[in-house]
Amino acid sequence: MCVCALVVEDEESLQEIVHDALKEGGFDLTTVASGQEAVAMIESGVVKYSALVTDVNLKGPMKGWEIARLVRQIDPAFPIVYMTGAAADDWASQGVPNSILLKKPFAPAQLVTAVSQLLNTG
Amino acid sequence: MCVCALVVEDEESLQEIVHDALKEGGFDLTTVASGQEAVAMIESGVVKYSALVTDVNLKGPMKGWEIARLVRQIDPAFPIVYMTGAAADDWASQGVPNSILLKKPFAPAQLVTAVSQLLNTG
Amino acid sequence: MCVCALVVEDEESLQEIVHDALKEGGFDLTTVASGQEAVAMIESGVVKYSALVTDVNLKGPMKGWEIARLVRQIDPAFPIVYMTGAAADDWASQGVPNSILLKKPFAPAQLVTAVSQLLNTG
Amino acid sequence: MCVCALVVEDEESLQEIVHDALKEGGFDLTTVASGQEAVAMIESGVVKYSALVTDVNLKGPMKGWEIARLVRQIDPAFPIVYMTGAAADDWASQGVPNSILLKKPFAPAQLVTAVSQLLNTG
Amino acid sequence: MCVCALVVEDEESLQEIVHDALKEGGFDLTTVASGQEAVAMIESGVVKYSALVTDVNLKGPMKGWEIARLVRQIDPAFPIVYMTGAAADDWASQGVPNSILLKKPFAPAQLVTAVSQLLNTG
Amino acid sequence: MCVCALVVEDEESLQEIVHDALKEGGFDLTTVASGQEAVAMIESGVVKYSALVTDVNLKGPMKGWEIARLVRQIDPAFPIVYMTGAAADDWASQGVPNSILLKKPFAPAQLVTAVSQLLNTG
Repeated sequence: MCVCALVVEDEESLQEIVHDALKEGGFDLTTVASGQEAVAMIESGVVKYSALVTDVNLKGPMKGWEIARLVRQIDPAFPIVYMTGAAADDWASQGVPNSILLKKPFAPAQLVTAVSQLLNTG
Repeated sequence: MCVCALVVEDEESLQEIVHDALKEGGFDLTTVASGQEAVAMIESGVVKYSALVTDVNLKGPMKGWEIARLVRQIDPAFPIVYMTGAAADDWASQGVPNSILLKKPFAPAQLVTAVSQLLNTG
Repeated sequence: MCVCALVVEDEESLQEIVHDALKEGGFDLTTVASGQEAVAMIESGVVKYSALVTDVNLKGPMKGWEIARLVRQIDPAFPIVYMTGAAADDWASQGVPNSILLKKPFAPAQLVTAVSQLLNTG
Repeated sequence: MCVCALVVEDEESLQEIVHDALKEGGFDLTTVASGQEAVAMIESGVVKYSALVTDVNLKGPMKGWEIARLVRQIDPAFPIVYMTGAAADDWASQGVPNSILLKKPFAPAQLVTAVSQLLNTG
Repeated sequence: MCVCALVVEDEESLQEIVHDALKEGGFDLTTVASGQEAVAMIESGVVKYSALVTDVNLKGPMKGWEIARLVRQIDPAFPIVYMTGAAADDWASQGVPNSILLKKPFAPAQLVTAVSQLLNTG
Repeated sequence: MCVCALVVEDEESLQEIVHDALKEGGFDLTTVASGQEAVAMIESGVVKYSALVTDVNLKGPMKGWEIARLVRQIDPAFPIVYMTGAAADDWASQGVPNSILLKKPFAPAQLVTAVSQLLNTG
């Protein structure tokens, strides 16, 4: 049994930072490089993911904003963390309610705190 | 000088309820029936609006979800209140961050409190 | 269709204040004098209540603290407002999460704001 | 017994607006024109005030920022509402924690909601 | 001098996970296996505990819900974190206000974040 | 590129604890011993700091309360964390809005969580 985050990131260097931060905090994670894969994995239900951590600007056709909306259509309470450098100002118009945005660069502790806050009921 | 809300509503009975509630709370308001008009009025800047109160399902091509996103692109801190019956469950995937959703039916005081909470800095 | 609060209060003078405040805010309400009646009315489902407003110290065997717990067992998201003079300090140990306590005396607007805040999704 | 707000305002037109708004919400109030009077009235303890509503720019030597700090030294949990036009940007550096700022012009309902939010424990 | 959490847990494997997580975050802790011991230790005042971390379902007669209520009667501001698998849905009716519930399984970082959030004044 | 905190602390033992906690969380930091240095470094803009972590009682003429106010005059949204033992009760009258106070002694995780919470937009 685990607390498993689904990470959408297509830059290898960031994949590693996110992986190490979440592992250090005691989270398991699966990393995919595109929104299509992310939505497919949540829809399949094979692993029960507890949170989505997604980059906003991805090489594929789906941006992080769209991935989060699709995931919230499946589960309206799903915890969402966006990571972005250039697109931080768009969160107010493109983000979903009760999500957290991490502006790059961010410290590993910020990611762990963001996921923890969203998971903790209180 | 006034605190003026921009209301997007195309049902006359609801226009009246919203009008009376906001006036009772001491707000001025302009009511339009479509998203195009709403966005045009905010872009024109002739009146400085302080908040958007929008129905979600409108007869025109733009839903309340899209109107709010366009308004937040113009001003990322703009207070947004959605009113909806059928589409309440979509707020988690279609709403913008830090907005408030009023599920129909709602009491006039809920609308006034929602707009006030979003306007008050604290 | 209405937004209907269920009020539990056994002092007539307070019944009137609560009634007038909620009506002024545009809420409908049913007032009962005991916890047993309150729980029965919510369980029956004949009227769909949107919030519970309960005095803490009642003449009957059930205190407001117990009524709220029973109501939350039926619906974990039910909005709860307690009203109390003497027992305000007990809220931290006897209240349910995400409830609001009004310390007597309170202004009518405090009650209306409390119910509105709990009903508004945001 | 009452819920009594202490209002610090030296412009007559605003005194009236604040008076009418709070009365409409069911609050009692005492209005004074300077910080010295406000602090004296809270220190005397003759009336038990429940909240401070203060203009920021006053003709006397004390600004609203200083009045609020003095009141919070007497009671660290005292609810504070500031009203200001020109000085709104200074709230982030001069305001006290857990206070609310009303930017002029504001609707009467905003004032009533601000005081109610700060008084309601939840 | 230390920041010391009082942990109530009667399963050894969980005792270890909680111990390691809190130590990693820099907290000291005392672990007891029953509510009676927990309440006795807080009442004795020999060590000044800063937070309670309690399992909900314990072998002894006292559940975590009751322990938290007793502790909050002693100190109404005491930070409370519940840990539970089966009983998560009961938090809305059995939990105390301003507490945090960790649903098992949880990552160690969630526990550390929960305790930290409750201890930090802000 | 980094997330860099500016720390104001003049006791060596505390400098070390704060340094180690922030580094462990993945933050960079600069430590200065006085308010004058802190304000100068933020004004110079050579390094872009993301948060201020300041002791309240310092040997120099400026207390942490004043440093935070000066920094917030430069940037009204600047994240502020105060650390204090003796002066914790003064936060309600001397702190700035949306700041966090850490009461000494505190665990390293509390500092990391405090800075992370203030940096995360959500």
